[in-house]
Order: sequence, then structure tokens, then C-alpha cells
Amino acid sequence: MKIIAVDAMGGDNAPKAIVEGVNKAIESFSDIQIQLYGDQEKIKTYLTPSDRVTIIHTDEKINSDDEPAKAIRRKKNASMVLAAKAVKDGQAQAVLSAGNTGALLAAGLFVVGRIKGVDRPGLLSTLPTNDQKGFDMLDLGANAENTAAHLHQYAILGSFYAKNLRGIAQPRVGLLNNGTEDTKGDPLRKETYALLAADPGLNFIGNIEARDLMAGVADVVVADGFTGNAVLKSIEGTALSIMKQLKTSIKGGGFKAKVGALLLKDSLMDMKNSLDYSGAGGAVLFGLKAPVVKSHGSSDAKSIFYTIKQIRSMLETDVVGQLVEEFSKETSSND
Amino acid sequence: MKIIAVDAMGGDNAPKAIVEGVNKAIESFSDIQIQLYGDQEKIKTYLTPSDRVTIIHTDEKINSDDEPAKAIRRKKNASMVLAAKAVKDGQAQAVLSAGNTGALLAAGLFVVGRIKGVDRPGLLSTLPTNDQKGFDMLDLGANAENTAAHLHQYAILGSFYAKNLRGIAQPRVGLLNNGTEDTKGDPLRKETYALLAADPGLNFIGNIEARDLMAGVADVVVADGFTGNAVLKSIEGTALSIMKQLKTSIKGGGFKAKVGALLLKDSLMDMKNSLDYSGAGGAVLFGLKAPVVKSHGSSDAKSIFYTIKQIRSMLETDVVGQLVEEFSKETSSND
Repeated sequence: MKIIAVDAMGGDNAPKAIVEGVNKAIESFSDIQIQLYGDQEKIKTYLTPSDRVTIIHTDEKINSDDEPAKAIRRKKNASMVLAAKAVKDGQAQAVLSAGNTGALLAAGLFVVGRIKGVDRPGLLSTLPTNDQKGFDMLDLGANAENTAAHLHQYAILGSFYAKNLRGIAQPRVGLLNNGTEDTKGDPLRKETYALLAADPGLNFIGNIEARDLMAGVADVVVADGFTGNAVLKSIEGTALSIMKQLKTSIKGGGFKAKVGALLLKDSLMDMKNSLDYSGAGGAVLFGLKAPVVKSHGSSDAKSIFYTIKQIRSMLETDVVGQLVEEFSKETSSND
Repeated sequence: MKIIAVDAMGGDNAPKAIVEGVNKAIESFSDIQIQLYGDQEKIKTYLTPSDRVTIIHTDEKINSDDEPAKAIRRKKNASMVLAAKAVKDGQAQAVLSAGNTGALLAAGLFVVGRIKGVDRPGLLSTLPTNDQKGFDMLDLGANAENTAAHLHQYAILGSFYAKNLRGIAQPRVGLLNNGTEDTKGDPLRKETYALLAADPGLNFIGNIEARDLMAGVADVVVADGFTGNAVLKSIEGTALSIMKQLKTSIKGGGFKAKVGALLLKDSLMDMKNSLDYSGAGGAVLFGLKAPVVKSHGSSDAKSIFYTIKQIRSMLETDVVGQLVEEFSKETSSND
């Protein structure tokens, strides 16, 4: 049985979307148990009772505008903190929250804890490509600064994720850089390039550019947290902006445009769905002793369901256990 | 009379698109003269003769895969190098090329030269926003590494550009960061934040995120060259990828979708045009003693025309002259 601790109070649509997502997951997967942390009365309004769901009541929760590290320290009984603590104490095997990202990162680092040998866990998401296969990118912003050694670890972490969660035997690892030539980049990129090229455990394909990400040039994309964050937000912002432009154009285009949009509805939905990658689950703070997964703040029940599915796969394939083994090797070989 | 040196041999559609763009500009603007550098015979095939256009023949040109600095040193008679040299020697007032970006940056720095007091000229473009007003962003990749002092200069440079070329009296300057809170970012961002906040000559509005760029949160966006480059390429890649997805969906959607697309044609073109910002001209290597402007490699005659229009405005408003004055003040006040 896989036991997942869920913060029922995090995100714009909590607890409704969270609980409804849990209902669906409990129905679909007979090998999971869910612990729901949060306001018992509110949770019960939406919960389909099951002997595989437990509610752990708490009045406290972390708000989206709370200062992360402070919130984790002071709100000891917040739903998110209790969920993380359950993993630390061995009562659950993974944490899911759609709440304050910074606070979840802090709870992951300070409550769940890092795998020995992983210096700076990175935030990893599977992002969309035109061929629908997607790519895994990290660090998407868990860190504001990274060294080449961190980026090397991200290449290893990302490869493990792509192998275990997406079934890619030899994931192609690309280094996000300002050009594709071997000699491109700042000192951080040049040093990282040398480390990745020298690691026989990686299928390193060289430098890649942000322009080609959605064309699927790599399965795993390695970036420092600052750049990764900027790239992720640029992709999101551009996609949102284009959809908005299209809506405005259709609205302003009169009757003809409205009929056209109706006829094109399926194609437009296809396009929208290809950008919506919630089927791949949430963002994983990867490199911790257990899966700590952030679902988007605007998550609906479907996104929560897929994030639980993702966590279940992470537990099923024991990707974290494998990482522990890998990094204990690395550590001892460095001794 | 404004005299512009044009590299007729750079870009995917050279010399045809370049010469046709020049024809149109000569017809539209009676106050410009153009020097066309390149293969005389080929240029003549497309040129509408005018007493305001001169051809300076050369057989040599820089290819898109040439190593920039080396190409500039070795190909002394390349069309791009001769165009830059004409500015250096006072025979022309600005350079335009659609060729090898790195080589044009090198020609700008080493042939045209920096304004005294500007440490690292930055690559600036006007990029699209939903409200069609656009924003100016720099550095888009002229440098792989920048200091806070460089970023401070980019804020000044960008403000001058927005004032002179886009008529914005008090351009709102935003610092691209990994969050909007004052305390966000790595040491480079924190140090830059302090410099921008302390400069009374700037209308600094604080940190901004890449997600909000196209929503028009700032008129001038300051970034280091590595991040700026990644953000620019993410925006381009995402936009291209979405348009491609939409095409594929329409093609695969059968008769109904095709009729829908036909009815929606104007709206789809609206959307496409709102992303196509060639009307704003090319990318300026800003901080040099004269306008050095890069038109996109895939430029057509229309893009070249708009880039000449942009250069004409830069000369008309004497934005470079004003920069020289501004930075001579800064330099002397620092003494």
C-alpha cells in the first residue's frame, strides 16, 4: 500500500478541487491510501468516504502570501507542515500540495530532508513538446544560484526521472545554453559542459537553445534555477498571451469569426490541450528523501488526480530509493 | 541627409530582400542615402536605380557559420566589415545587416566602437505585448556574463531608447527577476536592484517576472545577456510551436476545420501579426558610437524597410548623441 500525505488546504480551489481529485484517485487506484490534512468539516463536504482515506484535522494553514521559511517555522500545525512531518516520521511516503511553492520547498528541504550526496534538490517538471512526448527540465527555480556540480547532479536526477517515470531507456540530456556550439556560454555553462561530457552514465547530447525546447530536442534539460525559472515563466506567459490574443481577435471578428471558431473548436481545443500538460502531474522537488510534489495553484480535480497518479508511479518505481543508492555510490567513490 | 551603410549580402534572402527593402525605403524617405555593400551584379538585378543609392562592390562576405571574431579579423573586405568601416571612417552614420549576429556584434564593438563610459553594449529589441505597445528588452545576448554595473547601464540605455524611439516620456523600467518581491533573486539581481532604486534619473518600478512580459508590465526590461537570450528564445520558440500546433490541428481536422480556419482567417492573421514585431525594426547593439542594427536572418523586404525606418528615427532623434552626452556626464561625475 502506498501512503500519500495530501495538503487539503493549498491552492486557489482548496479544499474542493483537492478532495475531488483524491476521490477520483482512490476510486482508480486500489493500492493507495490518502491522508488529508486540513479543515475536517470542509473536507467532509466533498469527500466520498473510503476506508483508504483518513482526515487529520487542523485549523492552521499557510497562505499564498506567507513568507515561506518563516511560515514553516511558525505555523507548526499548518496542513502543509503536518503533511511533510508525516513523511519525516514514516507515517506517509510522499507529500502533495497545491499551496505556497516557496513554503513547500522549505518544508521539503527542512522537514523531509535531502538525499545524502544531493547538494541542492531541483524543481523538475515535465513540459510539453509538439510531438506530445514532453521533456523534463530542472532546476525550475528551487535555487536562485547554482554551481556546475549542482547542474551535474540535475543531469543525473533528470535522467533517473525520465527513465523511471517516462520509460525512456537512454534519456537525451541537453544543457540549456546561449548557442548550440560546444564552446558557448558563460563559465558556469563551460564548466558544466565538461562535467556532463565526462560522465559515462549520461547520454549527454550537448548544448541546446530555449528556442528548440518545444521541438523536443532533448528528454532532459539542465538549467540553473534562475534561468530555468525565467524560461518556464516565458513559455507560460507566451502561451497564455497568445490564447488571449486569439480570443480577443475572435470576439472582435464579428459573426463570421464566431462561426469559424465554432467550426474550429476541436482544433483549438487540441492546441490548448497540447499546451496543458497537467496529465504529466506536478512539479517535483527532486533530490529529497521522498516525493514532494507541487500541483499548480490553480489546479482542478483533474490536475490533482494526475499528480496523485504521478506520485504513485514514483513510489511504484522507487525512483527515490534508486537515487539514494546512486548518490551513496557517488559519495563513496568521491571519498 | 542620413547615410546608412547596408550589408547587402547578409541573411537568408540576400541580396534580393535587402535590395527590395532599400528600394522601398528610398521611395518613402527623401532624407536618406543608402550605401549597398556586396556583389554589384547581383545587387543590380533587384535595385531600382536612384541617385541616393551607391553600390560598393566586394566579392567577400561573412557566412552564417563563420566564427565571428575570426571572420571580422580575416575577411577584411567582407560586405559587413566594409559597412562597419564606412561608419568608423565617417562615410556613413549607421550600419544595417541581416547576416551573422555574432560577427555583427564583433564588427560593432571592434570597428565602430563603444561610447566612452558604456562598458558592455547590450542587444536591444522591441518585443510584442498584448496591447500592441511593446517593450524594449536588453541585453538579449550580446554578453554571456554581466555585472550589476552593466545592468544599471542597460536601464539607462533602454530608457533613452524608449523615450526617443517610442515617445514614452517616463519609461517604466523593470528588472527581470525570479519573483516580484523586492528581496528576490541572486546577488547580481539584489545588487542591481539597489543601483536602479538609487538612480533618480530612472522610473524604476521594481522586479518583474518573465510570465508578465507580454502583458506589458514594463516599457524597458533589464536582464543579463544569458537570461535575456534564454527568455527571447523561449518566447520565439513557444510562439512558433503554438502556430505549428494550430496548423497541424487544422490540417488534421477535416473539412469542417478547414472551413472554420477560412472564416477565422482575419482573426488568425491578427494574432500572427501581433506576434510579428518586424514593424519595430531590428535588434540594436546599443551603446556604440553609431546605430548598428541586426535585422532577422529570415528578413523579407518589409522587415528591411522597417529596420531602415528605425535607423532613420535613431538618426533623426540623435539618440546616440544624447547617450554620448549622458555617459560623459556619468563618467566625469564618477571622477
